[in-house]
This record gives sequence, structure tokens and C-alpha cells, in this order.
Amino acid sequence: MTYCIAVSVDEGLVLVSDSRTNAGIDSVSTYGKMHVFATTPDRKLVLLSAGNLATTQAVVEQLRRDKRENTPVNLNSVSYLSDAADYLGKISVDKQKRYKEDEGQCSFNPSATFIIAGQIGKEAHGAYMVYAEGNSITTSRQTPYLQIGESKYGKPVLDRFIKMSTHLDEAGRCCLISMDSTIRSNASVGPPVELLIYRKDRYSIDEYYCFDADDEYLLTIKRCWHEELSKAFMTLPHYDRKFAIPLRDGL
Amino acid sequence: MTYCIAVSVDEGLVLVSDSRTNAGIDSVSTYGKMHVFATTPDRKLVLLSAGNLATTQAVVEQLRRDKRENTPVNLNSVSYLSDAADYLGKISVDKQKRYKEDEGQCSFNPSATFIIAGQIGKEAHGAYMVYAEGNSITTSRQTPYLQIGESKYGKPVLDRFIKMSTHLDEAGRCCLISMDSTIRSNASVGPPVELLIYRKDRYSIDEYYCFDADDEYLLTIKRCWHEELSKAFMTLPHYDRKFAIPLRDGL
Repeated sequence: MTYCIAVSVDEGLVLVSDSRTNAGIDSVSTYGKMHVFATTPDRKLVLLSAGNLATTQAVVEQLRRDKRENTPVNLNSVSYLSDAADYLGKISVDKQKRYKEDEGQCSFNPSATFIIAGQIGKEAHGAYMVYAEGNSITTSRQTPYLQIGESKYGKPVLDRFIKMSTHLDEAGRCCLISMDSTIRSNASVGPPVELLIYRKDRYSIDEYYCFDADDEYLLTIKRCWHEELSKAFMTLPHYDRKFAIPLRDGL
Repeated sequence: MTYCIAVSVDEGLVLVSDSRTNAGIDSVSTYGKMHVFATTPDRKLVLLSAGNLATTQAVVEQLRRDKRENTPVNLNSVSYLSDAADYLGKISVDKQKRYKEDEGQCSFNPSATFIIAGQIGKEAHGAYMVYAEGNSITTSRQTPYLQIGESKYGKPVLDRFIKMSTHLDEAGRCCLISMDSTIRSNASVGPPVELLIYRKDRYSIDEYYCFDADDEYLLTIKRCWHEELSKAFMTLPHYDRKFAIPLRDGL
């Protein structure tokens, strides 16, 4: 499993990903899922990947190769982020199809999902989630984030705090606690945790962090969030016994 | 979808359930998923249900009928909670199998899961989750709760605050905010929210509440939790730019 988040707010983009990969519970390893592409100076593009590792690696390799060989469509040639998503979707479907044909085991699943985020030229920055089928969706002002992988445990905190006006550093902290909730609940999501900040119209990465499991900051924010939540929990109003309903109990 | 929680701590049991049922997104209705059984004075048993509504209704009806007709095995005759879970599992599999045979549409899924909680005689109180296959699991001292239905959104808060020593009223509030997170994130989980408290060795329900969507207490605890979380969020330590890693950017 995997957990990746892309936040697209007024100030720019925040991307966060875990690094645990597993092929069965007895085959666990560490692979970064955040891929930054060296592109022409008019653009900056970052990929987040989830799903079958062979597929995601084949897709990333193809994206790099097309760029290097300057094929008619590549990450340096597309004019819009939506075109980049479309191009990525086609490569992804192509790679999955190839492995589907060679399918050996019936439990084999080559599917993969991606988020491509960044900015191209004068177009606004943004993020697209590319489904295994190759189609894609982007964010909205109401829901300025996308998730791939194990998305449910960490969603409530994003829904509460991520708005278009959220500052990039706040969004970064929010993603880190969203990641913390997910790591606590799903053993197949784990550190190192990568965090990347893209400030709009810069066409270069503003900040990049890679937090190991024993990173002091990651431990501090986890502890702090837990302590503050515990305090918050203790202040919750009690329900009043006078509103209890007598049960007929005669069922 | 559905969301039900059963907490089994030192002091007793807390059960919480939503009331939304849907057969497709255009067929949404309200059904309670908490079923209290009138039993002999040496026991108290409560059922929580998730899954196909026809199956869960057929199972509940069969449990009541067996009890009324005093069949060899029924909720009044079983000596242990694990026997009650086993008996429930057999009825559930039986009902599902019957509807599977009559299957018309290929998307038809008659499966259902249950939690049976309570206390029988001198045995300790407890809760069992009965899978669609009829087998079951109970809680542990490390994980003193069970969930059925849409369990992921509301799990992190249970993991943080539910311990064996948690008081029943605290556990009740924790379940209500777990339910709130789930209702926010999944449109197929909704009020009224039922909350039931069983204090151990009482053999009767201690407190029962049914909170509608506009219930003042439910609105207050939701608002209070959101405000306190927002305050907690603002106190989180910032990551330090000096630990940012220069990206090679040459990929």
C-alpha cells in the first residue's frame, strides 16, 4: 500500500508521500514514491505514484526516456497540465496492458494510480490524479487536495483544515498529521515521509524534506498532536443523562 | 453503508450506530441498526448490523422467533457470548445462502456483518464481530473495540483514546466524534445516531440515546471538537527550513 497527498492552494502546492512498498506481508521494502523531473525552465512537474511497483517504475522510466529522447509528446513538450495527465494516463494504461497480457497468477494486479502536480508556463499551478484506467480528475476550490493509496484514515483532518487560503507551511503540517494517522492505522504505509513545497510561479522546488522514522521533528509533531488532541478530547461537553430514552426492552 | 462501533472496557460496553441505509445512491432510507433483545434476567444482549438490509432483517427476525418459540438454541439458552456469536453466524450464513441461490442480478450481494455484545450470567461482558462467513472475533485488552461498516475514517480517534481503563462516558464521547468524522466523509453514513451504555453486571441497559441530525448536543460536540482541533492544529511545531534537502533535480 501507499499514501500520497497533493494539496493545491492559492500559494502553491504541497506534496507528501510515504515510502513503504510491499508484495505480500512478507516482502516489505522502501521505495520513494515522489519523482521530481528535471524539465525546461518554464515548468516544474512532480509525480506521486501508488500501486504495482513494476508498473510505476516502468511508467517513470518511460516518462524520463521520452523527455530525454525528445519524443513528439513528452513532459517538456506538453502545453498544459491536463495534457501531461493525459499523456501519463496513456503510458500507464499501456504498461498495465502489457503486463496484463503476460499475466501468470490470477491474483496478479498490475494497476497503478498517479498524481501529477506542478506548473507549466503561465497556466496556474495544479494537480491531477490519474486513475488506473488513464482518465483523470483535478482539485476544486471546495476540495483543494487529492489522495492516492490508503486515503481514508487521513482524510478527515484534510477536510477540516485544507482550504484554498491555507498557507503552504500549514498545509504541510496538516499533511504530516494526516500521514501520521495513516501510518498508525495501516502497517503497509511507512516512513521515510517525503514533503515537497512548490511556491507558485517559481518553476523550481521551494523546499524538500525527507523525514525518517526517528526524525526528531516527525516525532515531535506526532507527540504534540497526540497531546493536544488528548487535551481537546477532555474538554468535550458531556451528554446529559436527562435526555436518555427509556428502552422498551420488549423486543 | 453503515458505521457501528462496540467498545468493551473494564466498566462495561458502549455501542454506537448510524441509521442510514441505501440501495444505490438514489434509494436512501433510515433504519436503526441497533437491536436490543428482551432476554431472561440473567443476561442482556444487543446486536449491531451492517450490510444487506434484507439479510439483517431476516436474521433479526429469526433470532426473535427462535427466542419466542424457545428452540433448542436461542439467545436465552446459550451459556456463553461466544456461543451466541456462533449461533448468530449460522443464522446469518443460512439467510445469505438462501438469497444467493435465488440470485437474479450479478451485482446482488446479500452479505452482512454483525456485532453481538452484552453479558451472560457470571461470564464477563464482551463483544463479538461476526463476519459474513459466520466466523467471529472478539476484542482484546490492546484493541478494546470492534467496528463494522465504514470503519476507516473513524478509526484513528478510537486508537488514540479507547483503552481498557477508559470510562464509559468518555468512550461514548469518543465514539460520537468517531461517528462525526465518518458522517463528514461518507455520505452513506448518517443520523440518527444511537448510543447505548451497558454497565457491567447490571443485566439491563444503563443509558440509551438517539441523536437526530439537529440534536443540540450532537451539534455542540461536533462544533466543540472542530474548534478544539483547530486550536490544537495551530500549536503544531513548524518544520525548520534549515533541514530542507537540496534536490538534485537532475532526474
